[in-house]
Amino acid sequence: MINFLWLAIVAGLLAVLYGALQTAVLMRKSPGNAKMQEIAAAIQEGAQAYLNRQYMTIGMVGVVILVIVGVLISWHAAIGFGIGAVLSGLAGFAGMLISVRANVRTAQAASESLAKGLNLAFTSGAITGMLVAGFALIGVAGYFAVLTGPLGLENTSREVVDSMVALGFGASLISIFARLGGGIFTKGADVGGDMVGKVEAGIPEDDPRNAATIADNVGDNVGDCAGMAADLFETYAVTTVATMVLAAIFFKGQEIVGNMMLLPLAICGVCIVTSIIGTFAVRLGKKQNIMGALYQGLIVTGVLSIGAVWWVTHELVKSDVTVGLQTFGADTLFWCGMVGLAVTAAIVVITEYYTGTGFRPVKSVAKASVSGHGTNVIQGLAMSLESTALPALTIIVGIIVTYNLAGLFGIAIATATMLSLAGFIVALDAFGPVTDNAGGIAEMAGLPPEVRVSTDALDAVGNTTKAVTKGYAIGSAGLGALVLFAAYTEDLKFFSANAEPGSFFDGMGAVSFDLSNPYVVVGLLFGGLLPFLFGGMSMTAVGRAAEAVVAEVRRQFKENPGIMTYEVKPEYGKAVDILTKAAIREMIIPSLLPVVSPIVLFFVIKAIAGKVDAFASLGAMLMGVIVTGLFVAISMTSGGGAWDNAKKLIEEGHHGGKGSEAHKAAVTGDTVGDPYKDTAGPAVNPMIKITNIVALLLLAVLAKGVIG
Amino acid sequence: MINFLWLAIVAGLLAVLYGALQTAVLMRKSPGNAKMQEIAAAIQEGAQAYLNRQYMTIGMVGVVILVIVGVLISWHAAIGFGIGAVLSGLAGFAGMLISVRANVRTAQAASESLAKGLNLAFTSGAITGMLVAGFALIGVAGYFAVLTGPLGLENTSREVVDSMVALGFGASLISIFARLGGGIFTKGADVGGDMVGKVEAGIPEDDPRNAATIADNVGDNVGDCAGMAADLFETYAVTTVATMVLAAIFFKGQEIVGNMMLLPLAICGVCIVTSIIGTFAVRLGKKQNIMGALYQGLIVTGVLSIGAVWWVTHELVKSDVTVGLQTFGADTLFWCGMVGLAVTAAIVVITEYYTGTGFRPVKSVAKASVSGHGTNVIQGLAMSLESTALPALTIIVGIIVTYNLAGLFGIAIATATMLSLAGFIVALDAFGPVTDNAGGIAEMAGLPPEVRVSTDALDAVGNTTKAVTKGYAIGSAGLGALVLFAAYTEDLKFFSANAEPGSFFDGMGAVSFDLSNPYVVVGLLFGGLLPFLFGGMSMTAVGRAAEAVVAEVRRQFKENPGIMTYEVKPEYGKAVDILTKAAIREMIIPSLLPVVSPIVLFFVIKAIAGKVDAFASLGAMLMGVIVTGLFVAISMTSGGGAWDNAKKLIEEGHHGGKGSEAHKAAVTGDTVGDPYKDTAGPAVNPMIKITNIVALLLLAVLAKGVIG
Repeated sequence: MINFLWLAIVAGLLAVLYGALQTAVLMRKSPGNAKMQEIAAAIQEGAQAYLNRQYMTIGMVGVVILVIVGVLISWHAAIGFGIGAVLSGLAGFAGMLISVRANVRTAQAASESLAKGLNLAFTSGAITGMLVAGFALIGVAGYFAVLTGPLGLENTSREVVDSMVALGFGASLISIFARLGGGIFTKGADVGGDMVGKVEAGIPEDDPRNAATIADNVGDNVGDCAGMAADLFETYAVTTVATMVLAAIFFKGQEIVGNMMLLPLAICGVCIVTSIIGTFAVRLGKKQNIMGALYQGLIVTGVLSIGAVWWVTHELVKSDVTVGLQTFGADTLFWCGMVGLAVTAAIVVITEYYTGTGFRPVKSVAKASVSGHGTNVIQGLAMSLESTALPALTIIVGIIVTYNLAGLFGIAIATATMLSLAGFIVALDAFGPVTDNAGGIAEMAGLPPEVRVSTDALDAVGNTTKAVTKGYAIGSAGLGALVLFAAYTEDLKFFSANAEPGSFFDGMGAVSFDLSNPYVVVGLLFGGLLPFLFGGMSMTAVGRAAEAVVAEVRRQFKENPGIMTYEVKPEYGKAVDILTKAAIREMIIPSLLPVVSPIVLFFVIKAIAGKVDAFASLGAMLMGVIVTGLFVAISMTSGGGAWDNAKKLIEEGHHGGKGSEAHKAAVTGDTVGDPYKDTAGPAVNPMIKITNIVALLLLAVLAKGVIG
Repeated sequence: MINFLWLAIVAGLLAVLYGALQTAVLMRKSPGNAKMQEIAAAIQEGAQAYLNRQYMTIGMVGVVILVIVGVLISWHAAIGFGIGAVLSGLAGFAGMLISVRANVRTAQAASESLAKGLNLAFTSGAITGMLVAGFALIGVAGYFAVLTGPLGLENTSREVVDSMVALGFGASLISIFARLGGGIFTKGADVGGDMVGKVEAGIPEDDPRNAATIADNVGDNVGDCAGMAADLFETYAVTTVATMVLAAIFFKGQEIVGNMMLLPLAICGVCIVTSIIGTFAVRLGKKQNIMGALYQGLIVTGVLSIGAVWWVTHELVKSDVTVGLQTFGADTLFWCGMVGLAVTAAIVVITEYYTGTGFRPVKSVAKASVSGHGTNVIQGLAMSLESTALPALTIIVGIIVTYNLAGLFGIAIATATMLSLAGFIVALDAFGPVTDNAGGIAEMAGLPPEVRVSTDALDAVGNTTKAVTKGYAIGSAGLGALVLFAAYTEDLKFFSANAEPGSFFDGMGAVSFDLSNPYVVVGLLFGGLLPFLFGGMSMTAVGRAAEAVVAEVRRQFKENPGIMTYEVKPEYGKAVDILTKAAIREMIIPSLLPVVSPIVLFFVIKAIAGKVDAFASLGAMLMGVIVTGLFVAISMTSGGGAWDNAKKLIEEGHHGGKGSEAHKAAVTGDTVGDPYKDTAGPAVNPMIKITNIVALLLLAVLAKGVIG
């Protein structure tokens, strides 16, 4: 039989190889004229400087937590944490390195043809996507191979489970910092730059006289690209780990347990291959339909994945298994995987509906702009609230179907299959910031307006695909919430059943998460408030970062009147520097909120009502975070996308076009949507995971008996 | 011993008497000059026409549902439904009748002095408040007296319980229509009028040439006043009923059951008296601090209520009782009541912090306006999200403390005590729209600008007190959620235990609401999506209503150029008429969403997974609605208040004052906040109750065996 653990690792390496080869191809493309290269170099330098500093700060927090994990749980877990953290950081860094090189080349390619621009931008996205998936798979499968191979640990042992969960924690912790820090940077630059440039000085967007323009472009790379890559790395790693943990618990003692633990890794492995094939199917047809070209690739990947998942499930699951009251086999698990693909497809279609320029929601926001700023924002908010319903119903249907097929493990397999396409989905996303940057470079380098038309067309699709990725990430979190919750409850049962006399879990009895227990309701409400508070804090952070930018650009305009007359070049680096400091300062507290909250809740409720209710309340908190977080995140990301594209729709000439009153109102909506969709909304996803993983680790710590 | 049932009814009558006497006093005040009276008459006429039509439409829906309730449950229940519906409608109507008479008199009084203006506006609010509380108490206590007296039904019988729950349903159903219909009317007029007047035609707010001005003032009366009164009536009635139901279940068979059922009625009764006394303590001091004057009254009411609740609990609960594992007596229940008062106080203070002009949140929104529309909205949204945390924590603490004191019944008593102050809280709220109207009349009648300064000062405080009431209503819903959920679970247990052979509940077994059951998670998510979808639908409805207004006013400007030159009076009635139709058309579907959703969920899950999981999912849905509804409602109402007062702060001369760029941005924020705080946000409160009550009635229907 094939060794599927090695297959997963090889697939991961294949993805990295794809990335390396395509990077070589990309680097051979023309980086445009000297002016373009100069601008691109400034962006590169700023992005690298920011990420160096961000990862240094995160590194310090990370080292402290690594030591805590080592002391309180085990050094294998600490190493797992380190692997997750380093690879998550690496995924982000790689994403940034690619996109700061692809941007200027895309601008150059778009000046030749739309197809070439799309091709180049998408290739750079695909590189990032494959690196994210590849790193994640190598990390998870590789560390699992080391633990169960050379180190000789049993695959279902606590040591292995704890170490894998710690790997997920490392990934999550880095990704929340990266998402939030990058998000604050990029939107601080964007909002601040617009305010001081467009509003105060009356100069157009991306005007080279604005000291914040380079920072704005840097932001696209460190936020939308590096932050997103770290986020998806986390989602991928955590889901795979959680499915493995669940398999270890459910099938413990059965012969098939090893294969079941490998199943998520194998699915992810084969789907990396289908994703790579899919990237070659993205080609602009005669109709010049960009979204159509992307869909083509996605459909190829999806169809091939059906066969791949069928093969993997039937290779690994040769006989029926029984969990609780349900008996199922390879066919059933295959269908669970299909539900995962169907959920992905549904979320893509729904998100396109709510954020694409061709449908009612965006059209209605554009139309509302005609009557002013206020009505634009009202209609945008209405759409942002409404856009949560269909994705939530999709997830509900997904839960019901997969649960009826194969219980909680069925839900886990659906989630893993959903995420196995992450390589391709990230490719769709990462091309957005590249085209955004390309547009900025074209503007600053004074390329002919047709180039901007091409990059704008790509950018509008990028807004939708960015919203798609976010919907996909948060949707998988919704489906995965049950998996993580199940891991928590099953862990709790395990520790209770295997407690040593006198230890923390000894004689604790069963924990019920019944809603008629008020501590469960308390947990739900407490968990429910986190996404709101977190959202509020991150929006405020963007506001403060933007103010810092405004102050700096104002200072430069005042001290150097030559800037306005093009005689003096503004100090771009200063703006980057100030934003770097602001973003890093502002990201710390909100990021620690989900780390600290579960611990605080547990010990407070334990002091009031004892261990059992504390565990019940903590479990409910995990569910509460998902219940509100799902809606908050979807409403922010879809709403933000709708605002952005409503502006684009008007710029295409509807309702008066660029410069009209409607356009001004749409710019307001776009500004509002910026921190919504690129800072607060997407950061909710890692936030949800962190609370869940911290809870799982808390159990492990309490079981070790070092504290409690 | 005192008959506390009669005491409650007498207290209700006393409140109505207070209302009648104060109305007589109010009517003797000067209604100002002829111009003012003419304007006021137009507002009166419009408001009455709208409410007639609204209640006629609701009446038709109501009659259908009354028949359904009668056929499916019982005619006692149907009569209860009718009483709740009619009194809820009456409370709204009375509120409107008072405020359309008080507005012009307040304008006149404010032209004499701020103190006189405050006095008159507050008196009119107090009349509405006492009528709301009085009607509710008379309805609930009176029908209970009739059922258990002349009709000879046993107080804990299903017939009585079902009839009381149906009374709550009647109140809720009317109130969601009134809140939403009124909210759409008022904000459609406000937003539409501003758009076409301020933005397009460039004429000031409340300018008599704008055909929508009268409609705008009508809206304050039918939305903020009548809608709010119906809403608070509902909150008061439902909470009292739920507490009675819980007492009937918990203490069934114990001698004390009768007294325990009367306890919420008695608390409400004595607190009506303390509220009336409190109204006389509202007096403007030398410092001209309006909020201080209102606080004075609130504190007097609160302090007196401490004594009153102490007396009532000790009169009714003479010996300790045992429920489950807990034994408690009068002292404990008294402390539960005190927690209810403390929660009220905390919510008042927190809401003032987030919406008052003197604190960080509103100041930050005002400051953000300086940099433009976008940053104003971003900061407003940030504050709106953040503002949910402290109220949620307050509710969490309230749940924990009261549950530890006296279990679920303790939570119920805290909620009932919290709501027993509704008379006074409504007084605080209802004075807002009166002063808002007074300002409009002063402007239209061309009174000297000092008058407008006085009414604006009152209006700014009104924005805060309006947010306070909404926070209070939704906060009580949060605390009361457990009570309603407990009523649901206890009812379920009762029906299972007492099922006749072959009936729906026969042999069904226990229902567990454990979060590890995926159908429970499905219910949570489905419930969680309702407030978002509902919010989105109602915001869209406001947008459509506003567009209808814009079209009409534009038509009038175009067809009658004389309007602009003051030669021709615009057809105010037409605008009112169009809005009436729009509001009534738009309110139907969103209002039916919470009625239909629980029924659909139940039958869908029943078809998939059977009765037990269907009941579990339905129960979880009730909790899901609260978990997201609480945050959605608080964020909308507090955020809206903050935006409104940020505008007021700038109009007072900060950041450039009226007419500055900052002011324009603040107007945008105010426009956005309007449907947030006055349409979508407050309607979430009755929405939550309706889903809960429909679920309770569904149990009763299934038990009757007519359907299932």
